[in-house]
Amino acid sequence: MEIEIATIGGYEEVGRQMTAVRAGDDVVIFDMGLNLSKVLIHDNVETERMHSLDLIDMGAIPDDRVMSELEGDVKAIVPTHGHLDHIGAISKLAHRYDAPIVASPFTIELVKGQIEGEEKFGVDNELVKMSGGESMEIGNGLELEFVHVTHSIIDAINPVLHTPEGAIVYGLDKRLDHNPVLEDPIDMQRFREIGREGEGVLAYIEDTTNAQKKGRTPSESVARTHLKDALQSMEDYDGGIVATTFSSHISRVSSLVEFAKEIGRQPILLGRSMEHYSGAAERMGYVDFPDDLGMFGHRKSVDRAFKRIMNEGKDRFLPVVTGHQGEPRAMLTRMARGETPYELESGDKVVFSARVIPEPTNVGQRYQAEKLLGMQGARIYDEIHVSGHLNQEGHYQMLQALNPKHVIPAHQEMEGYAPYVNLAESEGYKVGRDLHITRNGNRIQLVE
Amino acid sequence: MEIEIATIGGYEEVGRQMTAVRAGDDVVIFDMGLNLSKVLIHDNVETERMHSLDLIDMGAIPDDRVMSELEGDVKAIVPTHGHLDHIGAISKLAHRYDAPIVASPFTIELVKGQIEGEEKFGVDNELVKMSGGESMEIGNGLELEFVHVTHSIIDAINPVLHTPEGAIVYGLDKRLDHNPVLEDPIDMQRFREIGREGEGVLAYIEDTTNAQKKGRTPSESVARTHLKDALQSMEDYDGGIVATTFSSHISRVSSLVEFAKEIGRQPILLGRSMEHYSGAAERMGYVDFPDDLGMFGHRKSVDRAFKRIMNEGKDRFLPVVTGHQGEPRAMLTRMARGETPYELESGDKVVFSARVIPEPTNVGQRYQAEKLLGMQGARIYDEIHVSGHLNQEGHYQMLQALNPKHVIPAHQEMEGYAPYVNLAESEGYKVGRDLHITRNGNRIQLVE
Amino acid sequence: MEIEIATIGGYEEVGRQMTAVRAGDDVVIFDMGLNLSKVLIHDNVETERMHSLDLIDMGAIPDDRVMSELEGDVKAIVPTHGHLDHIGAISKLAHRYDAPIVASPFTIELVKGQIEGEEKFGVDNELVKMSGGESMEIGNGLELEFVHVTHSIIDAINPVLHTPEGAIVYGLDKRLDHNPVLEDPIDMQRFREIGREGEGVLAYIEDTTNAQKKGRTPSESVARTHLKDALQSMEDYDGGIVATTFSSHISRVSSLVEFAKEIGRQPILLGRSMEHYSGAAERMGYVDFPDDLGMFGHRKSVDRAFKRIMNEGKDRFLPVVTGHQGEPRAMLTRMARGETPYELESGDKVVFSARVIPEPTNVGQRYQAEKLLGMQGARIYDEIHVSGHLNQEGHYQMLQALNPKHVIPAHQEMEGYAPYVNLAESEGYKVGRDLHITRNGNRIQLVE
Amino acid sequence: MEIEIATIGGYEEVGRQMTAVRAGDDVVIFDMGLNLSKVLIHDNVETERMHSLDLIDMGAIPDDRVMSELEGDVKAIVPTHGHLDHIGAISKLAHRYDAPIVASPFTIELVKGQIEGEEKFGVDNELVKMSGGESMEIGNGLELEFVHVTHSIIDAINPVLHTPEGAIVYGLDKRLDHNPVLEDPIDMQRFREIGREGEGVLAYIEDTTNAQKKGRTPSESVARTHLKDALQSMEDYDGGIVATTFSSHISRVSSLVEFAKEIGRQPILLGRSMEHYSGAAERMGYVDFPDDLGMFGHRKSVDRAFKRIMNEGKDRFLPVVTGHQGEPRAMLTRMARGETPYELESGDKVVFSARVIPEPTNVGQRYQAEKLLGMQGARIYDEIHVSGHLNQEGHYQMLQALNPKHVIPAHQEMEGYAPYVNLAESEGYKVGRDLHITRNGNRIQLVE
Repeated sequence: MEIEIATIGGYEEVGRQMTAVRAGDDVVIFDMGLNLSKVLIHDNVETERMHSLDLIDMGAIPDDRVMSELEGDVKAIVPTHGHLDHIGAISKLAHRYDAPIVASPFTIELVKGQIEGEEKFGVDNELVKMSGGESMEIGNGLELEFVHVTHSIIDAINPVLHTPEGAIVYGLDKRLDHNPVLEDPIDMQRFREIGREGEGVLAYIEDTTNAQKKGRTPSESVARTHLKDALQSMEDYDGGIVATTFSSHISRVSSLVEFAKEIGRQPILLGRSMEHYSGAAERMGYVDFPDDLGMFGHRKSVDRAFKRIMNEGKDRFLPVVTGHQGEPRAMLTRMARGETPYELESGDKVVFSARVIPEPTNVGQRYQAEKLLGMQGARIYDEIHVSGHLNQEGHYQMLQALNPKHVIPAHQEMEGYAPYVNLAESEGYKVGRDLHITRNGNRIQLVE
Repeated sequence: MEIEIATIGGYEEVGRQMTAVRAGDDVVIFDMGLNLSKVLIHDNVETERMHSLDLIDMGAIPDDRVMSELEGDVKAIVPTHGHLDHIGAISKLAHRYDAPIVASPFTIELVKGQIEGEEKFGVDNELVKMSGGESMEIGNGLELEFVHVTHSIIDAINPVLHTPEGAIVYGLDKRLDHNPVLEDPIDMQRFREIGREGEGVLAYIEDTTNAQKKGRTPSESVARTHLKDALQSMEDYDGGIVATTFSSHISRVSSLVEFAKEIGRQPILLGRSMEHYSGAAERMGYVDFPDDLGMFGHRKSVDRAFKRIMNEGKDRFLPVVTGHQGEPRAMLTRMARGETPYELESGDKVVFSARVIPEPTNVGQRYQAEKLLGMQGARIYDEIHVSGHLNQEGHYQMLQALNPKHVIPAHQEMEGYAPYVNLAESEGYKVGRDLHITRNGNRIQLVE
Repeated sequence: MEIEIATIGGYEEVGRQMTAVRAGDDVVIFDMGLNLSKVLIHDNVETERMHSLDLIDMGAIPDDRVMSELEGDVKAIVPTHGHLDHIGAISKLAHRYDAPIVASPFTIELVKGQIEGEEKFGVDNELVKMSGGESMEIGNGLELEFVHVTHSIIDAINPVLHTPEGAIVYGLDKRLDHNPVLEDPIDMQRFREIGREGEGVLAYIEDTTNAQKKGRTPSESVARTHLKDALQSMEDYDGGIVATTFSSHISRVSSLVEFAKEIGRQPILLGRSMEHYSGAAERMGYVDFPDDLGMFGHRKSVDRAFKRIMNEGKDRFLPVVTGHQGEPRAMLTRMARGETPYELESGDKVVFSARVIPEPTNVGQRYQAEKLLGMQGARIYDEIHVSGHLNQEGHYQMLQALNPKHVIPAHQEMEGYAPYVNLAESEGYKVGRDLHITRNGNRIQLVE
Repeated sequence: MEIEIATIGGYEEVGRQMTAVRAGDDVVIFDMGLNLSKVLIHDNVETERMHSLDLIDMGAIPDDRVMSELEGDVKAIVPTHGHLDHIGAISKLAHRYDAPIVASPFTIELVKGQIEGEEKFGVDNELVKMSGGESMEIGNGLELEFVHVTHSIIDAINPVLHTPEGAIVYGLDKRLDHNPVLEDPIDMQRFREIGREGEGVLAYIEDTTNAQKKGRTPSESVARTHLKDALQSMEDYDGGIVATTFSSHISRVSSLVEFAKEIGRQPILLGRSMEHYSGAAERMGYVDFPDDLGMFGHRKSVDRAFKRIMNEGKDRFLPVVTGHQGEPRAMLTRMARGETPYELESGDKVVFSARVIPEPTNVGQRYQAEKLLGMQGARIYDEIHVSGHLNQEGHYQMLQALNPKHVIPAHQEMEGYAPYVNLAESEGYKVGRDLHITRNGNRIQLVE
């Protein structure tokens, strides 16, 4: 059976991930993501109303025109988890394909949100839920399996396409976490089995985000211990404490909610995306928040919540808000500019449970947000976080577990592939033979 | 009563700490440290045989000639903990003063080691043990109290000299740790009492090492969780695992020993200073190591231990060795150069439970050690560590607890004082009035 | 005669410089500057209409309330050169003092511009022109002398107040340039004389901006050679070339104009401040621009100029525009966003004859401007520049020339003073004796 | 005719450059270099006595075993210029090939030195001199041409192998300098002709060292102006001035010699390699040094020269010495350690006309050398230098001049190729089609 991989997007950048695998006459698409930074650099761009081709020209969504060169029918669109760089182009591209969107339940829920927000295209692909540990027949003699992995969002999976020529493991976005906070540990056992079963692994597409980082990505439980230490140390403080983190990072939000309670404060989630993600997770039973946990997304209800906090006493609450990167329009930045009813005072604490994404525009905005917070007397706690991506040791372990015939580094620009190439070469792979440095829009024929 | 503080050493650098407080006719000296980097930059310098004046000229030990200007008698020499930058000059300077050395039991033990190693001077000052929480009368109407603090070495204290004019708190080297691994939490309660008692606090001398760092220094328990996560992830590895950390960091060594056992390996401590510190801690009962824990310092016994490891199987041991900074003659660097019987192989793991001290010579040496380890196939786990010094939030809390009349930043060069000055000014202090930016060799008259 | 120095602004930051010297009953004020970054961090602040007190609270202009403690009459306000951090608060503060503004002719011209733009206060202090090399009697037995210095703006001086107790040299903002492009070399000869005359130099207030930089600040002639090399290499290019630099840097603008001609292009100055500074310099005869050099500041005339360029051919012009730091509203950023009639094409060259000011907000904006330029195909030439401030060697030379009794580092925050303190101590000065680390709002009594 | 390129060394690092081109039955080898850092990381390795295979295993010299797969006869070994990373393996590998070494006259002279120093192998390949602008018939219907280029060593060329299928341009190590100090400008005219002639350029192998740097590498004349400005500013200094630069950088050494004379000092070249390179350049007439210029390489004669300087007065000399990177055994480091008769004093000036190579070991050593110099009172002038390699604009110009069918980035690790790939893609090349990301030991078949 012919096996071919089209590396459509996310092979020259982090963002707008999209990969297609053709096995015989059947094609499966993994991820359809958005590169948000390509949107934000322009003023006043509203993607909701934009046409796909314009977004492709901007480099914001994958250029899927290479799909016409793949001789086969798309049988499924498979986003691996709910981050925008993996699902954010579905509303712009999925309607072109007559195929269901297959994803884990939480991811499906977030995909729904994307589709509902879309104003240009009508997307009515079937939405099919499948959880980690499950699989389905697909196309002609193929099987699609989801392996449960751990990442900075819940319900992430690595899809595996089993073909007669061996398995194709699409390995994007995970950390080897044996002690995550809300979920099961990563299913390394299953990866090891896949590495030994049948024809073994034909190809492994790997998330190389952190390939330059030594050692092992710490478990979410390390971030949790760090966060607990920080919040408990504030137990006696009788002023304002505010925290911010990635809205989609349900485990972290859950820890913040829990520790707020422990130090005698009422947690409250504020900001549109904070409400969006945590609301979905709670509705679906992924997390068991306290009954009295407030979540507010709309400007008016947020301001009402802030007024209530100011009336009842800042020392009784712990708002968890959006704005961890200093985004100009996020809640924390508005607080820093004094645009909300919440009044910061000297000694108030602001906890960034996130790292600064090291891109200069971003660094500048975060700096400015911290400056503005500081001008109001706030004290910053930063970098209480662990990455959601594999460091070098995780890469070694995955190669050893899967023992793939071909390896395709992904999720980076070429500069980011370099340390992964060194690592994979030390395991016996060779560029140009079985280690494929590729670019957006290329096709790699694995079996002819 | 006249109160005067002589800032003798460690006010223009990190290293060679020494401060004298005169209260009336009595003088107490806090710390007599060594600036090791001023020694190491020269080839082949052996401090054991060198004269004080030469070491003073090199900037290696405090220039205590300003002591002759202090009109009073030295009643005690009080090292705060056992790090070299606090006790390393005792063997060169203490014999000039007719006064006992008063310190916590573990510190006294390490001071003894210093004195025994000295080849130039005979030091026979009385050695007096006093623990955190205890105090003694001293001089004329003065009281010396030890407050228990948490640092990266056990049995650290902050000495407080109670005078009729208020307390002098010598605050060098601590972290506000409410959950340390081997010891009691820092005694913040006592600091708060001292801040409110009698005349309150006349002066606070503060360790500003981390004054540029936001938030709170994480607890040792955070490093421990991180370390546990790393070591547990190696449980299935059947090759060599080696760890390194600060030899004097007994809590960390203890965690390493414990986790080695947990993953089924025999820990073994190797290297002269590893044996020195851990041996002392165990003899004195600060730590309860397993009975079968080997500690070897001399070259021959170390090599014998390595041979035994190679014979019985690297997978059965976890050597904890010196060399976390890539020091050219330390054990790990010797291993990296293939100069020991221990043979590293591809896939072996080396855990640096320490951060790189950010000084270029050091960074270069550490880089070289890692390169050499990598050339043998070893994989590096780095930065599994937390600092032993206060971040900004700790400084705020200490100022609020003590409410001192005068503040004297220490333990840095002027560049390092700058962020502390901003911080203290935000709490109402003012340079030139009650916030004293000083230099080595100055005297500050607090009460005339 | 009592001599006292009030360090009013610019002693905790770069920006809002202001220093007052009292000699007996007479007071002279040096500089009244603006800290622009404190304004720009807020959205939509228009300083023109703001009250002084609000600007003081923002940290934007000097807090001159300490002036009420100085027992003497202000005889002159003396800005040293025309940069905003030295003249930008004159329109907000000068009217409070019944004293003339004394400055070099070009500086006076720029002060006029400031006063005319002011909408809140009426400023009618007398404007008195005095050039480098000249002096005037002032107050009771004092003499004010201007020594010609070289900086990144023309007609900069260092004012010297000669008192019976010795000279006070206000040394802000210069580079020791023996080969500047448009002006005479720095008058080191005069500084050496002042160091030896009469009572010598009582105090030297020093610009420590670059005190951490080794060696010597290169001459403007080095930047000129660099710029020439870059522009000449583009001689054969038949597309667009655009340059940007500091609008006030007349020497650099002049070199750009000259080299544009040399490679067969018509230079044209675009942007409000570009027209403002270069127009003033040309009118006053400081620079001899070609007769056909266009300068356009108003939006409409700029757009007209761009249309003409597009019609006649980009290859015939070299626009010199504002926007070297990526300021969001500057001309180059507008070009990068496609908001002007000038259309950038692949291969067009953009020359930044400026360095990026290393502040994160700024770095982020500049990065974004370069990204946007790059998206249109432009190629960036950056860092064709030399600093206008003394490096370490210049500081040594000034101390040796003047041999001052007291030294007061200025024009930095404390962190920036640290390397200068090390330098001055190596020349025999001592903090707390004759080397004064001070803060905004302090007074230093030199002669009682 | 079959055309094939073997990328043997220097495609995964900077250092040990070696590339072979097979055209039909004939093979030409370009460069045989040494990666010195792979030698220096080991203590006490003496390459002179080592066998090739050991050096290959260390990664120090190219692994030329791939040559056995090339079906053709080696007709020439062509080093492009005299730097060690291009000629340093000739003494270890050239004797395996029955072919002459063809190079420019200065390069041949330096190759001779390499061969004479070799103690393990006898190398007796014929040495053939050919200058830039010349060419020779070679093999069967091939022509080897040397195009004169400008680099940080004199007499550098880019070899071009003219084949019936088009030209192979080996573009390693150059800067587009239209105004070098000692030589003719780069021969861009000839590159443009080659781009247009006959079959055009089949392949261009490019030095991507600086591909991440914006704009244009400044001309050597810019470094010269900078250096002149620095030295002239020291004209009045009556103590010691010492300079250091790359020994092989004859243009820079020549400028130092000239400016020393201009400020009334006797230049003198000290250190083994300083004598080696400058001696060769002078003997061969590349530079016209003053008759009284001393050059001393052997330890004894150097010390004698230092003694003479100390006797006659440091103010009368300007020693130009080795040690610009702080190499532990170089002359300047010995001076810094007080191991030579030259006594540094407070105020003496040390000019580094070189940049620090940004590798941590190196940065550490340089830092240490500067510290030691500073401890003796010396003041550092650093970074008076320009790179010898193309920045981005040079890469664009070369692609436009040559218009090659295939492009092969070289002289970097993969991380370094990334910015070049982006650049070449913006000019229409595509990875995997005509833009070849390769590794050591690969073969690329261009014509079958």
